[in-house]
Amino acid sequence: MPASAIRKLVPFSEAAEAAGVKVYHLNVGAPDIKSPDCATQAVSARCNGMHHLSYTHSAGLIDLRRGMVEKYYRKLGLDIETSQLLITVGGSEAFASAMQIAAGQGDEIIVVEPFYTNYQTYAFLNGITLKAVHSDIREGFRVPDISEFEKILTPATRAVLLSNPCNPSGKLFTKEEMLAIGDFCRRHDLFLICDEVYREFCYTDEPYFSALQIPGCEQNVIIVDSVSKRYNLCGARIGCIISRNQEVMACALKYAQARLCPPVLGQYAAIGALDTPDSYFQEVREEYIRRRDCAVEALNAMPGVYSPMPYGAFYTVAELPVDSAENFAKWLLTDFRMDNETLMITPAASFYKTPGAGLKHARIAYVLEVPQLRRAMNLLATALSEYDKCLKK
Amino acid sequence: MPASAIRKLVPFSEAAEAAGVKVYHLNVGAPDIKSPDCATQAVSARCNGMHHLSYTHSAGLIDLRRGMVEKYYRKLGLDIETSQLLITVGGSEAFASAMQIAAGQGDEIIVVEPFYTNYQTYAFLNGITLKAVHSDIREGFRVPDISEFEKILTPATRAVLLSNPCNPSGKLFTKEEMLAIGDFCRRHDLFLICDEVYREFCYTDEPYFSALQIPGCEQNVIIVDSVSKRYNLCGARIGCIISRNQEVMACALKYAQARLCPPVLGQYAAIGALDTPDSYFQEVREEYIRRRDCAVEALNAMPGVYSPMPYGAFYTVAELPVDSAENFAKWLLTDFRMDNETLMITPAASFYKTPGAGLKHARIAYVLEVPQLRRAMNLLATALSEYDKCLKK
Repeated sequence: MPASAIRKLVPFSEAAEAAGVKVYHLNVGAPDIKSPDCATQAVSARCNGMHHLSYTHSAGLIDLRRGMVEKYYRKLGLDIETSQLLITVGGSEAFASAMQIAAGQGDEIIVVEPFYTNYQTYAFLNGITLKAVHSDIREGFRVPDISEFEKILTPATRAVLLSNPCNPSGKLFTKEEMLAIGDFCRRHDLFLICDEVYREFCYTDEPYFSALQIPGCEQNVIIVDSVSKRYNLCGARIGCIISRNQEVMACALKYAQARLCPPVLGQYAAIGALDTPDSYFQEVREEYIRRRDCAVEALNAMPGVYSPMPYGAFYTVAELPVDSAENFAKWLLTDFRMDNETLMITPAASFYKTPGAGLKHARIAYVLEVPQLRRAMNLLATALSEYDKCLKK
Repeated sequence: MPASAIRKLVPFSEAAEAAGVKVYHLNVGAPDIKSPDCATQAVSARCNGMHHLSYTHSAGLIDLRRGMVEKYYRKLGLDIETSQLLITVGGSEAFASAMQIAAGQGDEIIVVEPFYTNYQTYAFLNGITLKAVHSDIREGFRVPDISEFEKILTPATRAVLLSNPCNPSGKLFTKEEMLAIGDFCRRHDLFLICDEVYREFCYTDEPYFSALQIPGCEQNVIIVDSVSKRYNLCGARIGCIISRNQEVMACALKYAQARLCPPVLGQYAAIGALDTPDSYFQEVREEYIRRRDCAVEALNAMPGVYSPMPYGAFYTVAELPVDSAENFAKWLLTDFRMDNETLMITPAASFYKTPGAGLKHARIAYVLEVPQLRRAMNLLATALSEYDKCLKK
């Protein structure tokens, strides 16, 4: 199983913190936004006087499935039925299951790089090979022409897998890009697995275009979703898999039965979260726009640094003027200090399949409040200048 | 993927209930015992005023891991360290992970039949073949001589997998049986994956003998455990994997990182449950002994029915005087009614690998209170007599 550059850094960050150094964590997508009160209160209410905590249906509580369909997806204009949705253990189980449904040992799945590294983990565990279409930082990570997809298509290709908005790049796929990919999948009879867990975090005036809205792709599309980011309930471990393809849902249910049921207390939180007012999302969105603008402006003001403007999620990928983003990220934790503070970033090479790609790229999660984020950016600017001097010595 | 006889019956049970028929569920291990108040109260306390619900360490909260080691396993005389335990999404993830660690595509795992059917599901998903040693109902499911294990050993064998006490048979493995299996695993360098989720449910005066206590097997043993049955917190989805083999734990952590973290609200419940008083377990044990005695006596009093005495878990497997336990179980739901009531049992054939084995066996979960259980047994006795008349027509 491939080693994870991200995980390799954790001991260094723990050592720095144990030594009393303040570490600004721009490395993980673990935001500090408050969860809606209706979510946590729903759990308390259920636990008060509870007799025992039994299994639910393997597909999840019907109140949650129906509630998501009627109170959440319908509001977005996404017309699905309860039978087309199954509750999973976070988005993680949803895409693991989707990948297993779409492909088996020896099969191939096309991803757009940079991509979420855990896709690689589940591919490895299932003997699936990921083949990458390259999207370039200098082109704002726009999706390349479909001819690039055609080039790596083989008889073993079973699916295209992408996250929109994209973790790690923050890229928001355009409607045209989604239609082109949908057309490619339909023509070649491939599944289109679309991880939409950052759907609420879009910073354009265009309405979000879901893979569920691609005409004629009803049998191809498998949606991965989660309440983790939407309501900042990452720890609830509640996600879902959605498809209008009945065979896909039958297969998802079989897999789900093997693990009995999704976490029930998390399901209670998710049911409560369905009553989250629209104002919550507006406020969160405005907050992230402030953070994004702060981070991206600061990054591009640093000599030799380039970050395109991300229009979704809460990440950006920046090119750094360093020999290796991995070495630099480690050095930040082991050597660099300013007033006993430093920061942690994610080297981005593991988000790429193409050898040598992304070696100087880092993913920055703008998950701190603006004053803290500004401080972290100051640290980064100083660190880059010091690192440059160290290298030249 | 193999069809599940158990799941196939669900629509018939739902139809009966929708038609107003009362169905006594002896088919699932979903008990009605109250969870300890300290568990559910711990969740309420954490949710009151909670800011947000973030990820935990992939191995679970350190308070839970340390608490399990110090407050639970140590009390049982099982000396393990915190680093030798990782929190999983129920026992299900623990054995799925253990199987993936022990074996890969094309490898084989030895099971003692009858065995928990979901082992077959995960074997199938990972391209692993289960090879079964047969334990016989007429011999009280005693473990056969180790020569039977030797007979099915091949160069592809990687592990022995068993549940003790056993789901579905209620068989409690003796210390001698465990030592013999441990010796076999050590001699052939195999993992011994031992699912001990029913450890609290033992009905002999002997202390429970865990696979962790087999001398010299420290590097072979992988324990699957769960809080689901112990505290009747099935819906919390909290289990753990335990091994003194460092490589096993490193691998378990890598798999765990891919799914980010175990359900956090369930972890809170499990932390609270660590304060469960000993009297809780004593009362639960006494209750299950009453239920077991009620069920097993009633079963053996029915003409042509045989059930050995189970010494663990809350199941027994009974041989029924029918053409097929699957047909009979379906007929109970579709045709048989007494005062508008019927019962649901689990046909046991899918717990066996040997073709033709267990066709007339059913698993009975004695998870109802004695008066209800007695009524269900009366229904079963009448049903068997009516079914016999139907067949003879």
